[in-house]
Amino acid sequence: MNIEEKNGTVVFKRTTDYKPGKDWRNYLIGRPLQTADAPHQTIGKLLGLAVFSSDALSSVAYAPQELFLVLSVAGATAFHLALPLAIVICLLLAILTLSYEQTIHAYPGGGGAYIVARDNLGKLPALIAGSALLMDYILTVAVSISSGVAQLVSAYPILFNQRVLIGVVMVAFIMLINMRGVKESGILFAIPTYFFLVMMYITVIVGLIRLAGGTLGTVVNPPMDVLAQNTILQPITLFLILKAFSSGTTALTGVEAISNGITAFKKPASKNAGQTLIIMAIILSSLLLAITFLGTRIGGLPSEDETLISQLARTVFNSRGILYIATISSTTVILMMAANTAFADFPRLSALIAADGYIPRQFAYRGSRLVYSRGIVALAVVASLLIISFQASVSKLIPLYAVGVFLSFTLSQAGMAHRWFKSGKIKAGQEIIERGSTLIFDSHWLFKMLTNGLGSASTLLVLSIFAVTKFTAGAWIVILLLPIIVTALLVIHKNYEVLAKELSLEHFTPRGRITHQRIIMPIGGVHQGTLTALRYAKTLSDDITVVHVSIDEKETQKIVEKWELWGDGYRLVVLDSPYRLFIEPLLEYIDEMEAQKQPNDVINIVVPQFVPRSWFANFLHTRTADTLRRVLLNRKDIVILEVPYQVD
Amino acid sequence: MNIEEKNGTVVFKRTTDYKPGKDWRNYLIGRPLQTADAPHQTIGKLLGLAVFSSDALSSVAYAPQELFLVLSVAGATAFHLALPLAIVICLLLAILTLSYEQTIHAYPGGGGAYIVARDNLGKLPALIAGSALLMDYILTVAVSISSGVAQLVSAYPILFNQRVLIGVVMVAFIMLINMRGVKESGILFAIPTYFFLVMMYITVIVGLIRLAGGTLGTVVNPPMDVLAQNTILQPITLFLILKAFSSGTTALTGVEAISNGITAFKKPASKNAGQTLIIMAIILSSLLLAITFLGTRIGGLPSEDETLISQLARTVFNSRGILYIATISSTTVILMMAANTAFADFPRLSALIAADGYIPRQFAYRGSRLVYSRGIVALAVVASLLIISFQASVSKLIPLYAVGVFLSFTLSQAGMAHRWFKSGKIKAGQEIIERGSTLIFDSHWLFKMLTNGLGSASTLLVLSIFAVTKFTAGAWIVILLLPIIVTALLVIHKNYEVLAKELSLEHFTPRGRITHQRIIMPIGGVHQGTLTALRYAKTLSDDITVVHVSIDEKETQKIVEKWELWGDGYRLVVLDSPYRLFIEPLLEYIDEMEAQKQPNDVINIVVPQFVPRSWFANFLHTRTADTLRRVLLNRKDIVILEVPYQVD
Repeated sequence: MNIEEKNGTVVFKRTTDYKPGKDWRNYLIGRPLQTADAPHQTIGKLLGLAVFSSDALSSVAYAPQELFLVLSVAGATAFHLALPLAIVICLLLAILTLSYEQTIHAYPGGGGAYIVARDNLGKLPALIAGSALLMDYILTVAVSISSGVAQLVSAYPILFNQRVLIGVVMVAFIMLINMRGVKESGILFAIPTYFFLVMMYITVIVGLIRLAGGTLGTVVNPPMDVLAQNTILQPITLFLILKAFSSGTTALTGVEAISNGITAFKKPASKNAGQTLIIMAIILSSLLLAITFLGTRIGGLPSEDETLISQLARTVFNSRGILYIATISSTTVILMMAANTAFADFPRLSALIAADGYIPRQFAYRGSRLVYSRGIVALAVVASLLIISFQASVSKLIPLYAVGVFLSFTLSQAGMAHRWFKSGKIKAGQEIIERGSTLIFDSHWLFKMLTNGLGSASTLLVLSIFAVTKFTAGAWIVILLLPIIVTALLVIHKNYEVLAKELSLEHFTPRGRITHQRIIMPIGGVHQGTLTALRYAKTLSDDITVVHVSIDEKETQKIVEKWELWGDGYRLVVLDSPYRLFIEPLLEYIDEMEAQKQPNDVINIVVPQFVPRSWFANFLHTRTADTLRRVLLNRKDIVILEVPYQVD
Repeated sequence: MNIEEKNGTVVFKRTTDYKPGKDWRNYLIGRPLQTADAPHQTIGKLLGLAVFSSDALSSVAYAPQELFLVLSVAGATAFHLALPLAIVICLLLAILTLSYEQTIHAYPGGGGAYIVARDNLGKLPALIAGSALLMDYILTVAVSISSGVAQLVSAYPILFNQRVLIGVVMVAFIMLINMRGVKESGILFAIPTYFFLVMMYITVIVGLIRLAGGTLGTVVNPPMDVLAQNTILQPITLFLILKAFSSGTTALTGVEAISNGITAFKKPASKNAGQTLIIMAIILSSLLLAITFLGTRIGGLPSEDETLISQLARTVFNSRGILYIATISSTTVILMMAANTAFADFPRLSALIAADGYIPRQFAYRGSRLVYSRGIVALAVVASLLIISFQASVSKLIPLYAVGVFLSFTLSQAGMAHRWFKSGKIKAGQEIIERGSTLIFDSHWLFKMLTNGLGSASTLLVLSIFAVTKFTAGAWIVILLLPIIVTALLVIHKNYEVLAKELSLEHFTPRGRITHQRIIMPIGGVHQGTLTALRYAKTLSDDITVVHVSIDEKETQKIVEKWELWGDGYRLVVLDSPYRLFIEPLLEYIDEMEAQKQPNDVINIVVPQFVPRSWFANFLHTRTADTLRRVLLNRKDIVILEVPYQVD
């Protein structure tokens, strides 16, 4: 033990040799870890791409199909618009990539939307960005898992009716893995990610070669479920095109992941992270364009029964053979990895916001495996509810998705643009750098401001398009929820602030010494437990009143007689309770005593608390003492003393 | 206030003027009643018959049909056995009636099987009889409600698929009525009971007249569901006949009701109750015989789709007109009344057994409406579960029924026989009457002993027949459950006994005065709440140790600094917790302190208990103090002092 003495206060410090015991949770999530066990390894670009890009890359599994789906209301002929729209989306991706590349260099410690907005725009924008991102992570899980299930169902249609169940089981599985705490060991991520990329490139390259050779046919028995519903074709309007575009932009979700995880990269971290971002953008664009192009050429149709990826793979490979199965399984796995990314991001972000006091503090505590267990469980529960409510349908979930993503994109880049603006004013002396600020003068500030500004403006435009065109389809839910969530965060913060202020010692004058201890001891009988409590009460004060609430007159007579014998002369008050209530008459009595007391008196309620031997025995006794305690806790200047008596 | 002083102990007595407030329960079950409000009215024979006989009389709605059902496996020709069997059942009823008539006179205060067995046979037989009766009451509810639903479904076949739901709703409805507390006002019971009797007698008399006149035909479109299943007919064996007889004996359930409720009758209570019993037996026999006889003549068939009563009524009245509907509805209502009887009996019996300490004591407490609420709810829940498990099928429930009834009949009458035997020995001086015993010499003791003995023997025979013939069909469940329940009751009693002994003051030597109060005060921070607790702790003892479990080093440093400023020099122990656990390191520390303490020391754990303003705010704080308290309650010689601090 380590002893210090300062200003007359002795402080002992010691590390407990306590080691957590084994329990059932160990088998599920592994042995507890010490705080000092937190991993500090870094990874290179190759692994970095695998760890951070599954969310972005996996979106090629649903984005083209959702684009097709919107166009299908104008008939199959409208599909020729898909490729031009995909090209526009890729341009948008290019702008975003440049913009985020700048963020990565400006925030080498990690530049998520919440942090960037908090630093540069203030609390409210930060909370909006944070809430948007939290919702987005939840939807990432719901959409990715639903799409993963859809891939599975395409290969094994017999599973169609079990979609929701399979989805929920997948979420539970990923939750458990994350409760164990994944050491982002890279290898574990690299294998499925690169397997997916290899299978995707094989599919599109074989497809393109066969198309060039003229041997690529069209989809055999294309799924007609969606097209068959559109009996009356709608005209191709600007609204429809914008709506299709909106659906396609879901391909861009997950692009921000790298900017959150810069610290995981080997040094020079920012440079490595930035290059990884660019590589990811190139891969994503190429796959998006190729899949959209081939999808149009083979006559692929949007469907709830079979995904576009499945139609493409079986047409390219001419069968449901080994290559088809490999493509489908790699897609399913990458989608699960995407969900897994959200399981890393959501708890981390919620812990960050919780540390700032906007989310219940418990979200900032790490569990036995050093992970933010509460955030992980919360995410799994809400995502599962979404999967259940939306019947694991990607098309129904998509209109809720992307609003959050683009809102956080817009705010984060607006924050960056503002940052460059301030940076530019440093030289002119118009901006004073506060202590602790990371803001420095950057000679390219104007160019960088314009780049981030362009990024912000274009994502704002997409956001608006998305919100308008998808409003009735579901975006309204997010638009409605967002202010509610932000308000809730503010209310929570207010609560913590008020509490901190009320408990603060800043203007605290200690109250005078307690002058008198009055003791009230409610009893249900006179027995060893009661006398143990009395023995204890006597050492505190001589002003003891024992109170019995009488429900049964015979019982009361016995208690009075016993008290005369054993009560050491302390006064007994019998409260008659005609309505057979226990708590209420007692409270009434305590109220009266309170009314009589002096300012520096304290009323002590000594409760002889019977502790049954087993949980079973618990049912044999009314837990009145517990109820009494709960009620009394709400009263001022009352102290509750529980004198337990155990029976062996 | 009423003050007494005895042996130096001042006893104050007073009646609280507390009046219970309004809450939502008032709307559902009515305003709370005072203990003094308990009703004390008595009723005559006419109303007595209505109040106590619905259970017995309503059994004519299912007993003949169940008898037919067993015979049907030997084909429709076997139905000629139904009437002879019904006659045997009526003979049995006659024996039972005589036997119970004697019980009524011997136990004017109420002679249920539990009481009679307890008085005359001892604890174990009483518990067996009590358990059997409790099970039986549950089954009365399940069978009566299921049969009531079957009547409804016969008239309105469209309701067939909602049987279970209708049954459960009916149970819930009767439960609510009983939670309000039915004043057994007679009139409420008389109308439906006499309506049922009138409709039954109209049906059978019209039926008999039309039969005599040769105009009574056979059932049009009889329900073929059951008969159609018996593709291979079985021979008529003795086993089959006994099995059919067993099913028919369910008509005798409920006969004991009057003997439980003697005190409700006008004086001379025993005489009035006895005569009511005889009237009831005559009505029951006549209806049972008439329905069985007519059922055979019209070619009625047992069925899950339409009850025998329904087939009889529509054949007798030649249509599904007003008289048919009246008959069916009166039958449905009387069956609900029968279930209601069980709702009066079950809670009363469980309260009686609870008062003896064999069932958790809570069952003996009366709720706000002066009824034994816990028993009522328990009955409703278990009966509903039975209805759900058995899909509201009377035929599937019947094999579980009657085992309990006949077991309690047997024990109760065996008890009476034993009582007369003892009575006979009084004169010879071989039996000494204990103080408080109601046993008196009776000159007719031999005759009475033989009567009750015959009753006991014949019901034992029926019980054996029932148990054997219905064993595989479901009686095994009851036979298996009975010893389990009895064992559970004995275990509960043992628990109470051990507890009473351990708490008893009989051989109690008070422990010496407490010599030293050591205080341990765990804190999570230094704020107004902590200082309030410290201010309080200081008045108890100067031996105060403040303990902080350190999870975050920076946080701990702040606390140490603040404590130096505000801690009044009391020592602070910092426990480092590498596994981020709070409770365990603290307990380890308390263990060490306990190991050091002297026999008459007490360790006081002063817990600054933060009380959030609202349930909402509860979620913003970890309730570590609650967990700590729960764990500490299990330790000896530790007192927990909660110093609440509320924030306004």
